[in-house]
Amino acid sequence: MPKTAEIRALAETAIARCRKLAGFSEQTGRTTRTFLSAPMRDCHREIAEWLTQFGAETRIDAAGNVRAFYAAVEAQAPRLLIGSHLDTVPDAGAFDGVLGVAVGAALLEALQGKRLPFGIELVGFSEEEGVRFGMPFIGSRALVGRLDQDLLARKDEHGVSVYEAIEHFELKPSEIPDAGLRGDVLGYIEFHIEQGPVLEDLGLSLGVVEAVAGQSRLEITFCGRASHAGTTPMRLRRDAIAGAAEWITTVEREGQRVPGLVATVGKVSPTPGVTNVIAGEAQLSLDVRHREDEVRASAVETLIRLAEEIAERRGLMVQHGTLLTQRSVTMDSVLVGHVEEAIRRAGCEPHRMVSGAGHDAMILGEKVPAAMIFLRTPAGISHNPQETVNLEDVEKAIEAGVHLLDLLASSLAQQTKEHMRA
Amino acid sequence: MPKTAEIRALAETAIARCRKLAGFSEQTGRTTRTFLSAPMRDCHREIAEWLTQFGAETRIDAAGNVRAFYAAVEAQAPRLLIGSHLDTVPDAGAFDGVLGVAVGAALLEALQGKRLPFGIELVGFSEEEGVRFGMPFIGSRALVGRLDQDLLARKDEHGVSVYEAIEHFELKPSEIPDAGLRGDVLGYIEFHIEQGPVLEDLGLSLGVVEAVAGQSRLEITFCGRASHAGTTPMRLRRDAIAGAAEWITTVEREGQRVPGLVATVGKVSPTPGVTNVIAGEAQLSLDVRHREDEVRASAVETLIRLAEEIAERRGLMVQHGTLLTQRSVTMDSVLVGHVEEAIRRAGCEPHRMVSGAGHDAMILGEKVPAAMIFLRTPAGISHNPQETVNLEDVEKAIEAGVHLLDLLASSLAQQTKEHMRA
Repeated sequence: MPKTAEIRALAETAIARCRKLAGFSEQTGRTTRTFLSAPMRDCHREIAEWLTQFGAETRIDAAGNVRAFYAAVEAQAPRLLIGSHLDTVPDAGAFDGVLGVAVGAALLEALQGKRLPFGIELVGFSEEEGVRFGMPFIGSRALVGRLDQDLLARKDEHGVSVYEAIEHFELKPSEIPDAGLRGDVLGYIEFHIEQGPVLEDLGLSLGVVEAVAGQSRLEITFCGRASHAGTTPMRLRRDAIAGAAEWITTVEREGQRVPGLVATVGKVSPTPGVTNVIAGEAQLSLDVRHREDEVRASAVETLIRLAEEIAERRGLMVQHGTLLTQRSVTMDSVLVGHVEEAIRRAGCEPHRMVSGAGHDAMILGEKVPAAMIFLRTPAGISHNPQETVNLEDVEKAIEAGVHLLDLLASSLAQQTKEHMRA
Repeated sequence: MPKTAEIRALAETAIARCRKLAGFSEQTGRTTRTFLSAPMRDCHREIAEWLTQFGAETRIDAAGNVRAFYAAVEAQAPRLLIGSHLDTVPDAGAFDGVLGVAVGAALLEALQGKRLPFGIELVGFSEEEGVRFGMPFIGSRALVGRLDQDLLARKDEHGVSVYEAIEHFELKPSEIPDAGLRGDVLGYIEFHIEQGPVLEDLGLSLGVVEAVAGQSRLEITFCGRASHAGTTPMRLRRDAIAGAAEWITTVEREGQRVPGLVATVGKVSPTPGVTNVIAGEAQLSLDVRHREDEVRASAVETLIRLAEEIAERRGLMVQHGTLLTQRSVTMDSVLVGHVEEAIRRAGCEPHRMVSGAGHDAMILGEKVPAAMIFLRTPAGISHNPQETVNLEDVEKAIEAGVHLLDLLASSLAQQTKEHMRA
């Protein structure tokens, strides 16, 4: 185990690296780095520089992911993947995604050249946020073989397809199959900031993600009758905003009533939307997430039924459309157990939690055992230039990572022994 | 009294005239006619044609109002004003405002050259809607001497001032004082569509306006904390939309609780206003109207207090600003009594009501006795190309108008007799 001062130095370096990468941006003065944009080249070059000094081989795969391989003791050994994404939302902070790659680099550095019974492949995914093509996880989809023709044909706002973007970046779409996972993969580990207030609220540095919540996104429209705010008595109104408001309060109540559920109306768009006219229409968004798909589906059903009841009572009409349904993904229980133990060994209480946001681990989890470690996010602020991390929490993450590598090495040795005995 | 068939013909002509004027527009295919726009000249010419045949003298005053004078038996007699506005909102119907001028013309025609003990001045106001300069009642303000320097300096979106607009229309701003009310004015009568659903709901043709409600317009902003809809548990949210929604339901409840009050939130504008982000801010409009200024002020106060209570309980901040405060205006009780009797003589039940919208009668009421007659508005639809009127209701309005002129003539004769006796 590296000494406390060494861990601190590694954490400081990791934070400094995130800050440096934040300077590679499509926009002056703010951090915006979308899929295969020009500043992504600077990231690639920078990350390659970090890693080659520890004896890792670095390449860029055909989906634009950085892939750095640190070999095991033996050539035939399985490999552990550690990664996160390098793209950002517009006007982003410095840590969302990037920190997971920087912590991975710190773990390779902490090995000080020592070889393990498994190789480590550090992956910096080219795309997770869905900004440029309105479709997230382009990078991790390539690893699990889901970067398909439909997705390659998808165009950005300038009419450039994913396929063309890959070519413009001087990569070869024909080599996408080579980006797929190969050989014996031990698992995938992702360090990521929580992007929420839970760990801070509990006073904890780290969290163990046991599942990524499934999510439903809907559009709900209440239709009434636009009329004059001065000349229409209260009893003769069919006010779309008033109906929508009543429903929004029931959405909140339902979210509070069902444990683990989050239900949000984030968008309200009334028509005509002026001071002296009773709204004839109000278009709302609904975002519902839960670890259990059945609980989520039932909540959505209840909320639609309540919308219909409110509309009927008020002489309104209500329409709804589903924009997205994404099932929940459970992390690998064995790997989650190791992560939990590693966090405990780093002196932290290993709080198990559900990720309300999607992550690359969700995509990798389709093919290989996957787990995530969340780092406390001050004030829960993310997707914002004010996003930050505590040095102490990054230290704890690196320390837990070092313990995790040890635990995985012991576990693998144990398995090999049992295998040989059998 | 003209015969039923004559009244019907007058009503049909009045409706046809409104439809014809609707064709004089700044936009092809829709009716839009703002203050001193080019199509206003066509209206002036058309109205002058209607009126000169009945022996009325027509002029355009310096504020662009049509002023047609039908002389009394004697030159020194007082005059009765009958009028409404000629401008429209964008994409308007054919009857808002214009019908009042067309009904006035029908009443002059119904006299068939007969002279009364008072003169009649028919006024077609140049501006009531406030579209071009964001400030309503430019026409009627000129009659009561309130077309002041500040208003004349006000600019439209092209940077043209009211003063310049008057000059461009080849009128002389220096002659504005001559547009003011002169001599002995008996009162002001305005026929106008209700623009609301009350008369239709009661199954009545006509209403007697006894007051124009005062109004308050405010902007209310709830401020919370924008955060991730997936990663922020319900109990750690400071959701501006949820707080706003709770308040909107209390606004509606307060409107329903207080007799005669209307309270409307017509605008809701959340920030950032996207599906997967809990809103950090929600900006709302509030429009409150009541006949009694004290009741309105107290309702506004209550609603602000409730907003503050909701905000405090939810860890939100709330800000509010007043955009407009307009006192209520009571119509003249004697004139209202005459209008009521005239409607009764036309065979209708004279329903007394409060106008929730502002009208020129409110401005004229500052200087002279004023009263209004509302005509039923099918489905309450106004400020919309679908705005319409029932022929039967226009007949009843003309019939009531004829009775009103009789009643006013008798009343004036009675007063003169008493005056001579004294």
